[in-house]
Amino acid sequence: MTVKSFQPPKRTLMGPGPSDVSQRVLGALARPTIGHLDPAFVGMMEEMKGLLQYAFQTKNDLTFPVSAPGSAGMETCFVNLVEPGDKVIVCQNGVFGGRMKENVERCGGVPIMVEDAWGTVVDPQKLEDALRANPDAKLVAFVHAETSTGAQSDAKTLVALAHKYDCLTIVDAVTSLGGTPIKVDEWGIDAIYSGTQKCLSAPPGLSPVSFNERALERIRARKRKVQSWFLDLTLVMGYWSGGSKRAYHHTAPINNLYGLHEALVILQDEGLENAWARHAFNHEALKAGIEAMGLKFIVKAGDRLPQLNAVTIPEGVNDAEVRTTLLNDYNLEIGAGLGSMAGKIWRIGLMGYASNAHNVEYCLKALDEVLSKAKAPISKGVAVNAAKAILGKTAKAS
Amino acid sequence: MTVKSFQPPKRTLMGPGPSDVSQRVLGALARPTIGHLDPAFVGMMEEMKGLLQYAFQTKNDLTFPVSAPGSAGMETCFVNLVEPGDKVIVCQNGVFGGRMKENVERCGGVPIMVEDAWGTVVDPQKLEDALRANPDAKLVAFVHAETSTGAQSDAKTLVALAHKYDCLTIVDAVTSLGGTPIKVDEWGIDAIYSGTQKCLSAPPGLSPVSFNERALERIRARKRKVQSWFLDLTLVMGYWSGGSKRAYHHTAPINNLYGLHEALVILQDEGLENAWARHAFNHEALKAGIEAMGLKFIVKAGDRLPQLNAVTIPEGVNDAEVRTTLLNDYNLEIGAGLGSMAGKIWRIGLMGYASNAHNVEYCLKALDEVLSKAKAPISKGVAVNAAKAILGKTAKAS
Repeated sequence: MTVKSFQPPKRTLMGPGPSDVSQRVLGALARPTIGHLDPAFVGMMEEMKGLLQYAFQTKNDLTFPVSAPGSAGMETCFVNLVEPGDKVIVCQNGVFGGRMKENVERCGGVPIMVEDAWGTVVDPQKLEDALRANPDAKLVAFVHAETSTGAQSDAKTLVALAHKYDCLTIVDAVTSLGGTPIKVDEWGIDAIYSGTQKCLSAPPGLSPVSFNERALERIRARKRKVQSWFLDLTLVMGYWSGGSKRAYHHTAPINNLYGLHEALVILQDEGLENAWARHAFNHEALKAGIEAMGLKFIVKAGDRLPQLNAVTIPEGVNDAEVRTTLLNDYNLEIGAGLGSMAGKIWRIGLMGYASNAHNVEYCLKALDEVLSKAKAPISKGVAVNAAKAILGKTAKAS
Repeated sequence: MTVKSFQPPKRTLMGPGPSDVSQRVLGALARPTIGHLDPAFVGMMEEMKGLLQYAFQTKNDLTFPVSAPGSAGMETCFVNLVEPGDKVIVCQNGVFGGRMKENVERCGGVPIMVEDAWGTVVDPQKLEDALRANPDAKLVAFVHAETSTGAQSDAKTLVALAHKYDCLTIVDAVTSLGGTPIKVDEWGIDAIYSGTQKCLSAPPGLSPVSFNERALERIRARKRKVQSWFLDLTLVMGYWSGGSKRAYHHTAPINNLYGLHEALVILQDEGLENAWARHAFNHEALKAGIEAMGLKFIVKAGDRLPQLNAVTIPEGVNDAEVRTTLLNDYNLEIGAGLGSMAGKIWRIGLMGYASNAHNVEYCLKALDEVLSKAKAPISKGVAVNAAKAILGKTAKAS
């Protein structure tokens, strides 16, 4: 059988990521490939560092994109900072805290779990109890923006608590970077990782990370080599932080990096605060429509991520059928529930380039039509106007 | 400081990779991003498997691209197949055999080194001696195409020897896939990894791998979890081999996969045997020019990779100056020596899309001019015509 070139459909991506990638970023991907040690490429890497430092609000020298998706960014933090026998307090309030636990165990560490219900935020009191009960703990790890539920924990408070008990911190910011405030230096985050396919709206495949001096000291003091050669920061930094003497470690994903660079230039041009405000504003509009329709958010007001809206599926509605209809008839992707949330919630993303008024209205209109046809118990025909009232538009049909 | 969009120069890439990427593949990268569980994407993944099975000449079901560069493909093989205490015979005849050793050690395995001089191939007799001396060895690992020297080892013979002594095999085919024969099923290779940025001429960032049933049995029989969550095949295969029930593991690098798919369609359309023949033919032409000029190959005839030509730097010539001039004045990238070969050799790639008559002549012309200016002890003005005689062209200036 002869395989033909692949022509993907044009979707509107309003799931938990990847989010819509702009034509400007897609165009950057298609620029000519050059060598990973080409002086022109090295210049781009320096710019990339500066742009990521801006996005993370840090001066950390070791700030760069790991050459693999967010899960590898997570693993980079754990394999470098955890040694066998180390106690690590892991706060779990969704799928990704569970993945952190897996990482600790696979590094030979001992996870101490602090569990909160899915859809709620990490409880600082529970963390402090765990820190008190485990004076020998070395690290605290938590997810800032739980992609599985849309809950946003108070990173600043959690980091301050960890430091009070002499622990370093690993923070998952996969879904938050560029969409909601993160201030690595001000909050004192020691190690952080993110993804490119959420609020940065670059294609998936890279994981921006940043490590402060305290984290580097811990790594330099390791007794054993990092168990991953590919993710060993003592080697990787020779390439990403080598100044004029960069040494080959692995071949960087050149064209994907062009895309991320372009996405970060767009973020710089918009301004980080403006991007945060845009995410918050479009969330308010979507929320107005969602609530007018009668759907419920699973996270309580004040704890919600503006870029990831988790809503309960109305009774009697077939999850998969609705998502399939949205995809086939509207070219619209929204996200299913993960883990214990499967079949119970939808996750509606308003991330990066996809966080715009058109998408808010388009998604509400599509949901309204599809749920009405499915005879779901919703208020019909009111969602779009409720959103428009926020978006400041007239009530004319979109 | 405001960062502007990055506009890379247009180079001719004749180093050890990345190789030139065609406009057709670059164009594929820029197609709209869709979700990693979108049915349209899943259909592309199935096609990808078939195309990679063709490239590897295998029917192995577990054949897919790891979501990270070749070094992560290497690590995928080792972390899944090596358990603490396992003896692994590693044949080293260049840089990448050394990286294999690092991998074995970081998995808690015990490497038994079989060393051959850089620039020579792996000696089957030495491997057999090591196998006899280590009846408890579980694995044999070697590099088929040593990217650091351009030597091509006899994979078929080495695999047969390993099997005779009941060892499984891990083969590095980063630089060979698509450029020189590899027959995974016929030769019985148990685990193999490659890269996309060499003879496939896709951008870097993915690592095609394939595992046979024997390798999978070994993985299923493991006593301990794989130390890498990101590279754990028991998890990854739920996404890449899940049939209609694919489960999310990590977010695949969507657009990079478009590029690899397109590159593999091009390989399919050309035909694998034709691609091998093209690489061999252009190598003959380059060799004629290189030898006419008076430069020497470091690998003896018969053991050379057609896609990677390692030649000694003529006496009195400044390595870095020549490469910088080629880059600045000719937009031509050739490779420096790695490790103990640094400053002693150049590595001239004729890989994938870059293996063509124009590049052969362009590189010889540029080398001729730059080395002549540098007063190197070469025969001037004869290289291009020597190549043309092979390429079947008239002696008119290019």
